[in-house]
Amino acid sequence: MTLIAVGQLALAVGHAEANRAAARDAIVRAAAEGARLVVLPELANSGYVFDGAEEARGLAEHLTGPTVSGWTALAREHDLVIVGGFCERDDDGAVRNSAVLVDAGGPRAVYRKAHLWGDEPDFFVPGAQPPPVIETAVGRVGLLICYDAEFPEWVRIPALAGADILAIPANWPAGTSPAGERSALVVNVQAAAYANRVFVALADRCGAERGAGWTGGSVLAGPDGYPLAGPVLADRPVLLVADCDLRRARDKALGPRNDIHADRRTDLYRS
Amino acid sequence: MTLIAVGQLALAVGHAEANRAAARDAIVRAAAEGARLVVLPELANSGYVFDGAEEARGLAEHLTGPTVSGWTALAREHDLVIVGGFCERDDDGAVRNSAVLVDAGGPRAVYRKAHLWGDEPDFFVPGAQPPPVIETAVGRVGLLICYDAEFPEWVRIPALAGADILAIPANWPAGTSPAGERSALVVNVQAAAYANRVFVALADRCGAERGAGWTGGSVLAGPDGYPLAGPVLADRPVLLVADCDLRRARDKALGPRNDIHADRRTDLYRS
Repeated sequence: MTLIAVGQLALAVGHAEANRAAARDAIVRAAAEGARLVVLPELANSGYVFDGAEEARGLAEHLTGPTVSGWTALAREHDLVIVGGFCERDDDGAVRNSAVLVDAGGPRAVYRKAHLWGDEPDFFVPGAQPPPVIETAVGRVGLLICYDAEFPEWVRIPALAGADILAIPANWPAGTSPAGERSALVVNVQAAAYANRVFVALADRCGAERGAGWTGGSVLAGPDGYPLAGPVLADRPVLLVADCDLRRARDKALGPRNDIHADRRTDLYRS
Repeated sequence: MTLIAVGQLALAVGHAEANRAAARDAIVRAAAEGARLVVLPELANSGYVFDGAEEARGLAEHLTGPTVSGWTALAREHDLVIVGGFCERDDDGAVRNSAVLVDAGGPRAVYRKAHLWGDEPDFFVPGAQPPPVIETAVGRVGLLICYDAEFPEWVRIPALAGADILAIPANWPAGTSPAGERSALVVNVQAAAYANRVFVALADRCGAERGAGWTGGSVLAGPDGYPLAGPVLADRPVLLVADCDLRRARDKALGPRNDIHADRRTDLYRS
């Protein structure tokens, strides 16, 4: 069993030091609880509601900058795998909405969001590489960012590549759901877990920002699609933790004669 | 607005006359309530738990047989579109797990289940044609059957082909969900609606059969993924009805700058 943590953080655009402190506090608390993998929100260094491309560029950091370096130091100190979203300035100077996975060895993979939401095209160059799957000490971790998870064919890529868990930094805009209904954003990632028999660790944010609110829907779901912790669905910082047997994700059987991946009709559609 | 009905029927294997009567009663009731489209369960003529291939073959009917002919007569009498599952003997004599759409003009399309569940490969030849989308008086109706809906790439086919509503005959096996959690089978079809901004009308069955029970999870979901009627989640016959503005499914916008289909990165994956 592996204790997995999801940090729903209160972030604020432009408050880089406070945002880094919020992430650090969640990481240290997760380590104290015994977590081995910690997932943090999208754009955890910068905040989200930029007033323009220049602000986004000014808040972007290189992979060698203080945010990711700080996560690496914490990963080393606490023997953790950390996944977090950050506003990145890549080697070519392009601004990206990225997720990084770091462990004691440093950054292992960077993924750039391929499906941009709202005004993000004004700030970010979209990714053109598929979601990576990283073999780590805790298992195989696939990376997606927020709106990416609403494209089932994109979710399939890391799932078919053998991910045990999809780590998804997100900034889910606030929305309304009918009375008694769970947000469809959460329902959708439950279905992503279910349809692929993988764990999903989705880290949302909180903290209203320039008039924008958030769903605060952080959730840890198991390979049967049911939540193991969360969904939070509240505008407050929360550290979710759940003990996960990630090996369960390697068994795609649904019964003696069915297997959710092997039953794909690859004779009728692409693998 | 179009009133749409989903008939959750009590079926019994081999009781063809009683099964036909149950379907007829649901259709007549739906028409009396003003429905224009009625969706019925999978294998509504035969039942599901066959004792062998010979029994399945003996219960299979040609498209010109009494079940589909009866549905056509009712469609004509009540000016309805009817979708139902039936155990089919096709023109070549193969036994199929099929769904048919009939209207006043007779059968408009037959779809054969492509993803077979459990022991179905012992009884049925799987389909090799994509889910059709049929232009009808009420809108564009796509057809899938039960386990088909758990393959997001298969659901995409009729959704991208312009379906307003996915009509899904099903026989969902009984299962258990954690306390307070909705069956992941239902969650999965809510996500299918949400990810494609289409309506979904899923007709499940009830009535324990040779030791097998059913989820009884019939549901009508809107393009935002939330139920409009159901899910039933009870082992009893129910007629769900909901007034649906099917034109909503033609608008895939999620906001001023996003569109759930147009935002697909077809440069990175197949359309």
